[in-house]
Amino acid sequence: MKNNSTCLIDTLRQRRQKLAELIDFPAVFWSGNSSPRNFPANIFPFRASSHFLYFAGIPLPNAVIRLEAGKLELFTDDPAPGSALWHGEMPNREEIAQIIGADLTYPIAELESKLEGAATIAVQDAATWTQQTQTLGRMVLPQLPPEGLDLELAKAIVALRLTHDAGALTELRKAAAVSVEAHKAGMAATKSAKLEAEVRAAMEGVIIAHNMTTAYSSIVTVHGEVLHNNQYHHPLQPGDLILADVGAETKTGWAADITRTFPVSGKFSSTQRDIYDVVLAAHDACIAKISPGVEYQDIHLLGCITLAEGLVDLGILKGDPEDLVARDVHSVFFPHGIGHLLGLDVHDMEDLGDLSGYEPGRKRSDRFGLGYLRLNRPLRAGMLVTIEPGFYQVPAIINYARSQYKYLIDWERVEQFADVRGIRIEDDVLVTDDGSEVLTVALPTDASSVEDLVNTPVPL
Amino acid sequence: MKNNSTCLIDTLRQRRQKLAELIDFPAVFWSGNSSPRNFPANIFPFRASSHFLYFAGIPLPNAVIRLEAGKLELFTDDPAPGSALWHGEMPNREEIAQIIGADLTYPIAELESKLEGAATIAVQDAATWTQQTQTLGRMVLPQLPPEGLDLELAKAIVALRLTHDAGALTELRKAAAVSVEAHKAGMAATKSAKLEAEVRAAMEGVIIAHNMTTAYSSIVTVHGEVLHNNQYHHPLQPGDLILADVGAETKTGWAADITRTFPVSGKFSSTQRDIYDVVLAAHDACIAKISPGVEYQDIHLLGCITLAEGLVDLGILKGDPEDLVARDVHSVFFPHGIGHLLGLDVHDMEDLGDLSGYEPGRKRSDRFGLGYLRLNRPLRAGMLVTIEPGFYQVPAIINYARSQYKYLIDWERVEQFADVRGIRIEDDVLVTDDGSEVLTVALPTDASSVEDLVNTPVPL
Repeated sequence: MKNNSTCLIDTLRQRRQKLAELIDFPAVFWSGNSSPRNFPANIFPFRASSHFLYFAGIPLPNAVIRLEAGKLELFTDDPAPGSALWHGEMPNREEIAQIIGADLTYPIAELESKLEGAATIAVQDAATWTQQTQTLGRMVLPQLPPEGLDLELAKAIVALRLTHDAGALTELRKAAAVSVEAHKAGMAATKSAKLEAEVRAAMEGVIIAHNMTTAYSSIVTVHGEVLHNNQYHHPLQPGDLILADVGAETKTGWAADITRTFPVSGKFSSTQRDIYDVVLAAHDACIAKISPGVEYQDIHLLGCITLAEGLVDLGILKGDPEDLVARDVHSVFFPHGIGHLLGLDVHDMEDLGDLSGYEPGRKRSDRFGLGYLRLNRPLRAGMLVTIEPGFYQVPAIINYARSQYKYLIDWERVEQFADVRGIRIEDDVLVTDDGSEVLTVALPTDASSVEDLVNTPVPL
Repeated sequence: MKNNSTCLIDTLRQRRQKLAELIDFPAVFWSGNSSPRNFPANIFPFRASSHFLYFAGIPLPNAVIRLEAGKLELFTDDPAPGSALWHGEMPNREEIAQIIGADLTYPIAELESKLEGAATIAVQDAATWTQQTQTLGRMVLPQLPPEGLDLELAKAIVALRLTHDAGALTELRKAAAVSVEAHKAGMAATKSAKLEAEVRAAMEGVIIAHNMTTAYSSIVTVHGEVLHNNQYHHPLQPGDLILADVGAETKTGWAADITRTFPVSGKFSSTQRDIYDVVLAAHDACIAKISPGVEYQDIHLLGCITLAEGLVDLGILKGDPEDLVARDVHSVFFPHGIGHLLGLDVHDMEDLGDLSGYEPGRKRSDRFGLGYLRLNRPLRAGMLVTIEPGFYQVPAIINYARSQYKYLIDWERVEQFADVRGIRIEDDVLVTDDGSEVLTVALPTDASSVEDLVNTPVPL
């Protein structure tokens, strides 16, 4: 049996060998530096660049790796004398090299002489992209799209990272499992909570207790109609729904992304349950359709049509569901895409723009709603995607749509659903050889099970 | 009775009037932007610049204020169309101006024409210091010490922020109160916890539940001898001490900073209790001495001497305590300073270097230990400082000291205290007109009370 370290070394070797099959020039990845918060010594928690993590496996601050023809060279400096007092004993360069299976190691100062003909990807923090720009002698900026060899490298990375190997899946399953527990804790804490912040605390507490971090800023709100709501100050009222979009990230950077919507009181109102079941039907239909070869955009459209069918049945939309979707009427209530890639980033490889999410030659749609779709590729086994349909009453959209869609939406009927501001149900789905596997399946989605979880008291 | 908003407006007006008494040129403060984490849309939680918060009161992203002769001008752009979908309805410029009592408001584009003769302070994030540099037409970088008018401004800000007004103290007390609850929760969670991370989760959960954030990366560890230990993966063993240095920060940026050290088992061993009581004696002696006019460095030295006395009594050090301190022998076990300023930053105004902590004309000592002292000024009523003596067995220091101090330290006796790797006790102390007030007094310090808190089961 192999130990963890051997597994990591094997995984990393396979990744760089695959990279070597795609490019014939060296690739250099910087890990990045901590970003300062309010003063230089008070830093945000270090997050290594995802591309570095993919090929180096562990989050080393201020390190660089150079990959060429399947070989791994590590550039990092040994801890400064005196650093042990403040930060404890750290592994030295040789010890790190053993952990990750580096073929050669050097101090950072050696890097500059080994950069000829090398491609790279810009890291997010300014200290690092400044360093990339200086040592490579050309502008490397996160906001500049890659060109030349850098573009070739970006395409090769996308080709690799689009599907996940066994090492990645082990981590992704860990992130999913902890996120499931976090959501259960949030639901269990809801009935005794007074503020959104208390539910968030219960959820993030589970993530912290597992020595993980959140993969993105949590959304835990009674105003689910604000899609990226990062405020937590609203009091919880008995008739409210909480929309919680919270995911964990493992120590080596792999993410989960789960949303559940649940009633503060422990019981959905009949209108809330009606809409919830429509969103759930869309969720289930999309997941059932996931299989290699299927176009993700078709899954998005299936989700939209299923939503439209449900809303027609409820008397909210009027007309033929397919026709309503063709006219974008569903997007009044479901303005975003059905999901996105998931991996080392919660929107995986979004730093590379639509190089990652869009098949070559495809462009974002101009249509409202569809234009927000983050993934437009045929699915392949090993891809991990989210499926996250929703229903929202966004005042800014509703106000506009009232005059735009006088006859296709029954506005009097809409008003009867005033207690549904925002519902989303999101799971993480792995494309398998013969269909799909929901990594987050341990967290139930049906309304009654969700109610049961809210009604389960917080365990001691 | 005044409402909160009127209070904020009055507080801010008084602060800028005081600034106008100190400088006769305009001061411009940028709030800053969010820093990206692993891709541009995945950001760290926004933290406004502390200087901006001091004069603008609320954490507005990408805003600028200009202060001149007591007047407040606000530069900020109204939310972009479509932003309501993702971020909800935000107050517009005029509404924000009303909340903070701005005299005039402008879009950001107007700023450039109003910068003549203005001083500023560099903000930490790269997007903002780039903007400062471009609009002011000169290098503004967090790592460059301020010069010219910027230096005059920095000195004026230090003069203001060294002591706290009533508005600041209201917030600082809130941060202290929540931090006290966080520590109690951490102690209560300890006996059932298996990992450091679980104790951290209990503590930070309280902070998140109060819709606050941590003021700095929490230290929650059984390896307290690593002074800035930000790892949480160690298992808890019955004989371990947990050192927890955790503080909350309010929504408007005011910080607390508390450390407690407690036994995993709920009972200190006799050796642990002996050292704990020595550290506590130093803590108590320092706090008892705090009063306007007293030199903070003298409090540091009193702490050192009290520690040395205790260690002589225990047979660890040999000789006269004052003489031992003069020879820096105590710093083998207490290598850092007795504390620092506390306010909007956990090390208040540390972005300004020793301009903030050191009285003009004073410089850092070359002596080991004393050189780490962050504050060297006479105390004044309204200053808030931490008092945080400790005892640590840092392997790197011990190894060096064994040969350096063969006769002043009884190394055989030291070995009997092997189960004390690190102890620190830290409180936040306000200098008052006639002495001091401990803002964090609600969290007991004596060993028996600490044991009681660990032995109190987690409340439902």
